[in-house]
Amino acid sequence: MLAEIITIGDEILIGQIVDTNSAFIARELNNAGIRVKQISSVSDDREHILTALNEAAVRADIILITGGLGPTKDDITKKTLAAYFGVKLIENKEALENVQRIFKRIRGEDAIMLDVNKQQALVPENCEVILNKNGTAPGMWFNHNGKIYVSMPGVPFEMMYMIEDEVIPKLKSTLKLPFIIHKTILTAGEGESYLANRIADIEDDLPSDVKLAYLPKLGQVRLRLSAYGDNEVLLQQKVDEFSARIIERVKNVVVAEEDIPFEQVILNILTEKGQTLSVAESCTGGYISHLFTQHPGASKVFLGGAISYSNELKESMLGVKTETLAQYGAVSEQTVTEMVEGALHVYKSNYALAVTGIAGPDGGTEDKPVGTVWIGVATDGKTQVKKFTFGNKRTQNIERSAISALFMLNNLIKDSGK
Amino acid sequence: MLAEIITIGDEILIGQIVDTNSAFIARELNNAGIRVKQISSVSDDREHILTALNEAAVRADIILITGGLGPTKDDITKKTLAAYFGVKLIENKEALENVQRIFKRIRGEDAIMLDVNKQQALVPENCEVILNKNGTAPGMWFNHNGKIYVSMPGVPFEMMYMIEDEVIPKLKSTLKLPFIIHKTILTAGEGESYLANRIADIEDDLPSDVKLAYLPKLGQVRLRLSAYGDNEVLLQQKVDEFSARIIERVKNVVVAEEDIPFEQVILNILTEKGQTLSVAESCTGGYISHLFTQHPGASKVFLGGAISYSNELKESMLGVKTETLAQYGAVSEQTVTEMVEGALHVYKSNYALAVTGIAGPDGGTEDKPVGTVWIGVATDGKTQVKKFTFGNKRTQNIERSAISALFMLNNLIKDSGK
Repeated sequence: MLAEIITIGDEILIGQIVDTNSAFIARELNNAGIRVKQISSVSDDREHILTALNEAAVRADIILITGGLGPTKDDITKKTLAAYFGVKLIENKEALENVQRIFKRIRGEDAIMLDVNKQQALVPENCEVILNKNGTAPGMWFNHNGKIYVSMPGVPFEMMYMIEDEVIPKLKSTLKLPFIIHKTILTAGEGESYLANRIADIEDDLPSDVKLAYLPKLGQVRLRLSAYGDNEVLLQQKVDEFSARIIERVKNVVVAEEDIPFEQVILNILTEKGQTLSVAESCTGGYISHLFTQHPGASKVFLGGAISYSNELKESMLGVKTETLAQYGAVSEQTVTEMVEGALHVYKSNYALAVTGIAGPDGGTEDKPVGTVWIGVATDGKTQVKKFTFGNKRTQNIERSAISALFMLNNLIKDSGK
Repeated sequence: MLAEIITIGDEILIGQIVDTNSAFIARELNNAGIRVKQISSVSDDREHILTALNEAAVRADIILITGGLGPTKDDITKKTLAAYFGVKLIENKEALENVQRIFKRIRGEDAIMLDVNKQQALVPENCEVILNKNGTAPGMWFNHNGKIYVSMPGVPFEMMYMIEDEVIPKLKSTLKLPFIIHKTILTAGEGESYLANRIADIEDDLPSDVKLAYLPKLGQVRLRLSAYGDNEVLLQQKVDEFSARIIERVKNVVVAEEDIPFEQVILNILTEKGQTLSVAESCTGGYISHLFTQHPGASKVFLGGAISYSNELKESMLGVKTETLAQYGAVSEQTVTEMVEGALHVYKSNYALAVTGIAGPDGGTEDKPVGTVWIGVATDGKTQVKKFTFGNKRTQNIERSAISALFMLNNLIKDSGK
């Protein structure tokens, strides 16, 4: 069973927004045992949408479409779908009641509905309406020539609800689905080609229904085994066997045996140990805190900390000495040491991390060019600090600093072994 | 002149990574006057890649490909391109030298290069190599049947350098390009359909070479005018005329007259005024600080602040009273007031903002369900606090809290008029 995702919207094609919908839908489909064959992003243009639908129908059995369902004139998906199926638009009672409900909730009981709002309740007459709990544009399910088409709004939180609560359950109840099993191993500290070389013979042994992929990203490499087929037990056995062989071979660099982000690995370890973490962020400016706190349950481990962006706050929040800043500068071994030990002391956590650097694009000097970053991690009685020299791109310097800090912290936690 | 972007990689189709490369490339192409017709994401599969190349060649003049150039066995783009062009792979001297250079830089002068590394220097014989300053996989430029094909690594910072420093300049020098002019107006606080209704007559007047799009996102709507053609002066006049009419009509909700993020608007205003900002983040956990500090020059305005995730840190960092927390709880009008006034006082900034809430999925009660968030903004002598009730999705609650905080802060700055 193959799916294609079509995202509609000029804003994607001019790069104004990143298409995050496709990744979400792809993940949900995969978990349900449906492989995504292709993702296509096309413009708000009738002919182009029709071509994309025709091409997708050749490749896929299920075609999921997002975008172009808004109330405004540039949104033409609904009309185009009606043309594609050769039907007309009709007003749907259920959809109209939903528009009225949402409208009143947002605008108050007495607000007057506009014609453009009412038009949101028009749908191609061959569709089954999927209720949009979070917005006024209805989702639409079509059965046509043996294929399933689903059209959803492009607004992520409207689409996400529909996929999770309506579309996936309906696909599962309608179709007999094959099994897809993924197993991901997260490694850090070794490059893709070295890893590949170390496990080349294991890779050669892989049966044809199991694939291995390398997903490198900023000092980490994810190894992903994927197996497709009908016999779930057999697929699981194969994946288990090969993942065990790979993990045994490269265990010195394995950070996690599941597909979770690095910071989640640390949260899990510290949650289990009942230990806490605080931070002192300068050049990463809250990014590391955000990495931790985006995950449910972070508050069990993460106490908080200082975004000590200015020198004054490095002193007042963390107790960094005025003389240290004057003599060595904010980006120095001495300052990062005082920052991380300050955080550990002031915020009374079991572990602390600190980052201070020059993220750029300005602020570099000959001695300390843009990309110079000092990172420190500490626990009671033990402080480790290290200098990094990254590149000249601000966003990358922030992200690489974060990953490097996680790497140092993870090692410190492992070394502490308590 | 039309382009298509093809991103290759199973990791995209199973939703393990979000394809951010396409948005970056699309933005760069648009700025250079090249329209992107379609973005297609396909799997690491020879036949599928060949089909995608054939389909793209029908639609587009320029085909930009990323991904599948790594040293490992799942990376088959290079072989597939050679087959598509009907040529063989040969070793490229320049590419090999680059592999050696990068390899020694990372591994040290004495490290032994692996065969898989050397194979990175193999390229289809009809290509012109594009140097990869940041990695070992060479970029490749092909002229074939009147079309341009460029293949680049999927690692973002390798691809980004190539696009900016090599591919765009070479496209500009090779082609006679038409003009594309975009103008974006950022609004906040009014829904898409209301906005559309207010400017419906202006939209009706738009000439055929100017398009208007609505890009809604979490309480903000971007209005984007786009004009395509040969006469730059005339296009600019049309865009200027219609953007002026739209701005005049909806000026009460216009936040910016350019395509910049909301937090950048605030940074720009405070930079101009020479004023500063500090934060006290609880449930947003560093996200708002990160929004500000991702932008160059943020340090002129943003002093830093507290990630006061635990109650203890709300007391010790911001001076929130123990009795306040005991009597009203961490998520309350009283606590957010003490937090924001504490930040203003302790961090000595001109403005402060504070957020405390229940991001979820756990931690809600009957009185204060998940999604309950108190936000406060303050300046000398003036504090404004407000309660919000968002939904039950953690990530969205964090993002909506951030946007709402920016909205309140922007209004406070405007009202303060100093």
